[in-house]
Amino acid sequence: MTTAICPGSFDPVTVGHVDIIRRARKMFDHVIVAVLVNPTKNPSFSLEERIGLLKRATKEIDGLEIVGFDGLLADYARTRKATVLVKGLRAVSDFEYEFQMSLTNKKLNPELETVFLTTSAENMYLSSSIVKQIAMFGGDISDFVPACILKDIQDRLCK
Amino acid sequence: MTTAICPGSFDPVTVGHVDIIRRARKMFDHVIVAVLVNPTKNPSFSLEERIGLLKRATKEIDGLEIVGFDGLLADYARTRKATVLVKGLRAVSDFEYEFQMSLTNKKLNPELETVFLTTSAENMYLSSSIVKQIAMFGGDISDFVPACILKDIQDRLCK
Amino acid sequence: MTTAICPGSFDPVTVGHVDIIRRARKMFDHVIVAVLVNPTKNPSFSLEERIGLLKRATKEIDGLEIVGFDGLLADYARTRKATVLVKGLRAVSDFEYEFQMSLTNKKLNPELETVFLTTSAENMYLSSSIVKQIAMFGGDISDFVPACILKDIQDRLCK
Amino acid sequence: MTTAICPGSFDPVTVGHVDIIRRARKMFDHVIVAVLVNPTKNPSFSLEERIGLLKRATKEIDGLEIVGFDGLLADYARTRKATVLVKGLRAVSDFEYEFQMSLTNKKLNPELETVFLTTSAENMYLSSSIVKQIAMFGGDISDFVPACILKDIQDRLCK
Amino acid sequence: MTTAICPGSFDPVTVGHVDIIRRARKMFDHVIVAVLVNPTKNPSFSLEERIGLLKRATKEIDGLEIVGFDGLLADYARTRKATVLVKGLRAVSDFEYEFQMSLTNKKLNPELETVFLTTSAENMYLSSSIVKQIAMFGGDISDFVPACILKDIQDRLCK
Amino acid sequence: MTTAICPGSFDPVTVGHVDIIRRARKMFDHVIVAVLVNPTKNPSFSLEERIGLLKRATKEIDGLEIVGFDGLLADYARTRKATVLVKGLRAVSDFEYEFQMSLTNKKLNPELETVFLTTSAENMYLSSSIVKQIAMFGGDISDFVPACILKDIQDRLCK
Repeated sequence: MTTAICPGSFDPVTVGHVDIIRRARKMFDHVIVAVLVNPTKNPSFSLEERIGLLKRATKEIDGLEIVGFDGLLADYARTRKATVLVKGLRAVSDFEYEFQMSLTNKKLNPELETVFLTTSAENMYLSSSIVKQIAMFGGDISDFVPACILKDIQDRLCK
Repeated sequence: MTTAICPGSFDPVTVGHVDIIRRARKMFDHVIVAVLVNPTKNPSFSLEERIGLLKRATKEIDGLEIVGFDGLLADYARTRKATVLVKGLRAVSDFEYEFQMSLTNKKLNPELETVFLTTSAENMYLSSSIVKQIAMFGGDISDFVPACILKDIQDRLCK
Repeated sequence: MTTAICPGSFDPVTVGHVDIIRRARKMFDHVIVAVLVNPTKNPSFSLEERIGLLKRATKEIDGLEIVGFDGLLADYARTRKATVLVKGLRAVSDFEYEFQMSLTNKKLNPELETVFLTTSAENMYLSSSIVKQIAMFGGDISDFVPACILKDIQDRLCK
Repeated sequence: MTTAICPGSFDPVTVGHVDIIRRARKMFDHVIVAVLVNPTKNPSFSLEERIGLLKRATKEIDGLEIVGFDGLLADYARTRKATVLVKGLRAVSDFEYEFQMSLTNKKLNPELETVFLTTSAENMYLSSSIVKQIAMFGGDISDFVPACILKDIQDRLCK
Repeated sequence: MTTAICPGSFDPVTVGHVDIIRRARKMFDHVIVAVLVNPTKNPSFSLEERIGLLKRATKEIDGLEIVGFDGLLADYARTRKATVLVKGLRAVSDFEYEFQMSLTNKKLNPELETVFLTTSAENMYLSSSIVKQIAMFGGDISDFVPACILKDIQDRLCK
Repeated sequence: MTTAICPGSFDPVTVGHVDIIRRARKMFDHVIVAVLVNPTKNPSFSLEERIGLLKRATKEIDGLEIVGFDGLLADYARTRKATVLVKGLRAVSDFEYEFQMSLTNKKLNPELETVFLTTSAENMYLSSSIVKQIAMFGGDISDFVPACILKDIQDRLCK
């Protein structure tokens, strides 16, 4: 049995994230969605809110565990007996940073493999920060975030 | 008649910006230079100053309109009946970000086309932030900003 | 009045090409689709076939001229009084090559401006060579080439 | 149970290939190494030789199947009920091409997921063509190909 | 006699930095390691600490001079009669930024040549910020920083 | 004393090549311009012609040696006691390939350092193959190749 981790800030979760999580779950037996507390950025949503939105957005996918997470991902994977990190790639600039992180993580935890999935073509332009930027100016984000949490995200960001 | 928008922070305008604006104007009937208020960065020049410098730097180009702008570019283009965004590209990293923005803008406003111009070879290293960095240390920026506004920019940045 | 050129091998034309041509035509008054004889590659379709397929695939777009072309694009543009080249970009590697070509063309013909359009997200993976590769093995190319010429392309490539 | 395919030319197999195959096998229950007949390149080793070298180089990894393969990978995966393609990435230029291929394959076979692994840092410069180039001039390739097949590869390439 | 400058923040020095400095010294007669005061970032180590750590980490390399530095690198090089800047490159994104900086520096000081060295494969994932991130969470950084200063860096970062 | 090698096909030499050779010579005591016989490409000029054109184009630079070269560059450097390879970089795609070659060469010859120079902005679009392409169609190449050999190159390529 293979346990995989999908790490991220999910601030907030987008349809792109849900797509990656669903596809990870099809390949691996158990998937942990690890929501980074991420002290170097000032998140728009609290950890509890980000976890809550993720749970609602993925409630139809079984075999998922959604948890907050702080510290070194390489160590966390070891304690959870996870051997795979799953990351979605949108662009070359993503790729370079993730490439370096995957080599670092392997150095810190040689059992840990990073696998990259490409985002679907229609999600290629999508990121949490673009969603926030559009919502902040009252733009339509209904194609970018899961329908079941759209209203909560709008209420929070469009004030 | 095609109306094009050249968006940017122009903090401050460089000879590279003027080159792109001039070339855009040669291709399109009406060009709106939209100066972003840009709340996420702390600009060195106020919106009024940036507009003032742009007006002086482009006074020999007719058919231009220079305006401040806040909100979603895709919406602004719609209200102005502009169907083209013009962006200058210097490098691969520019390209990736702009590629994503162009797909996002097209999603928000399907009538809006983004066209990219390559910067001239001699302006390839040029950006507002490099100008500011050089000026801050008393370096010579006379090749980087239009001559008619050089003194104002130096006075402001070199103190 | 601005005349633009869309150059390419079009061996064969794809839905991605048609999309770029249509968008170019929306921006510029007159669009010349210049089909390169391209002596360095061995085309799968003859020049006449490529022009014939293009004409059928774009018959609903007015203001187009579809011609064969040999020699230096920078010179051809001058003889045709075209001041704009339009190129579609799919990826960073496209971008670098096209960037170099645009600087070269500007050196040879300073009046000639190259503008880049990004391909639509759903065409990002699409190229003539991928179409040929898929067709050669009997794969389904109906999403990749215009419906009105699908049968001709299949007949030609799938034998 | 997940079946994954590691496709490639393997002309000849390198230690980088073996590393990717081993890591793929740790993640997925069954791994098919699909050796492309690849009609567009003129291989240095025949299909039989390439399969033979691969079998010897991977004889300590169980759960592998090594087969020749011709046609569309997306179709082959369907007939073999494989749902995952595994590709090693060394560099940005690899990434772009593979990104396009993964979107194409998903279009042709929506059940097929492409996952990317990063090569180990020490294999980042390694490719079959570099091995051949070095061997051709009598250089030392013992760090680049599995020890058990070194002599065969040298005998073949260094004549 | 050629004087070269290795500029950087060195916050803190890593084994990757020491490798670049050593290789620069093998090529050039005199090497100045210029530690940028760098007012736009908030360094983790003071200028004095960064210089002190560098001196200990490079004490076996002769012909080095380690100095703090503020202002324009192009001007500083002139005052020091240095004609070469040496920079280590890890990735494409490094490359683009450094490419632009090298063209800018040449504009400001035409005598100044920038040369790029590639990092060793095993240091490709290494940066001061990754070291700090790992140390902050109590991870093992002994492969990343010179042994003789490991304890000082840990004491400082792991509190 | 440091001996550096500038390797290349020089088919034919351009002003960009001469610029790199001149700058290499300013940094290093002795520079060997190694003209690759390069069996995988079909050169437009014979080895003797390429060496002859190089000699005339660089006759004002002293301390140069221009030689034909076949085999592994890493071995050749060792026999010549050269410790530096100098390569000019124009673009990201150049960079990736050269990065891999530099790691390979270092593996084969640990004493051999590769240093990269950026091309001047005005040569960024320039390559031997672009020169040949332009000349073949009768275009003006006088800005691209040294004046003293222009006629020979034109006579050869424009027939």
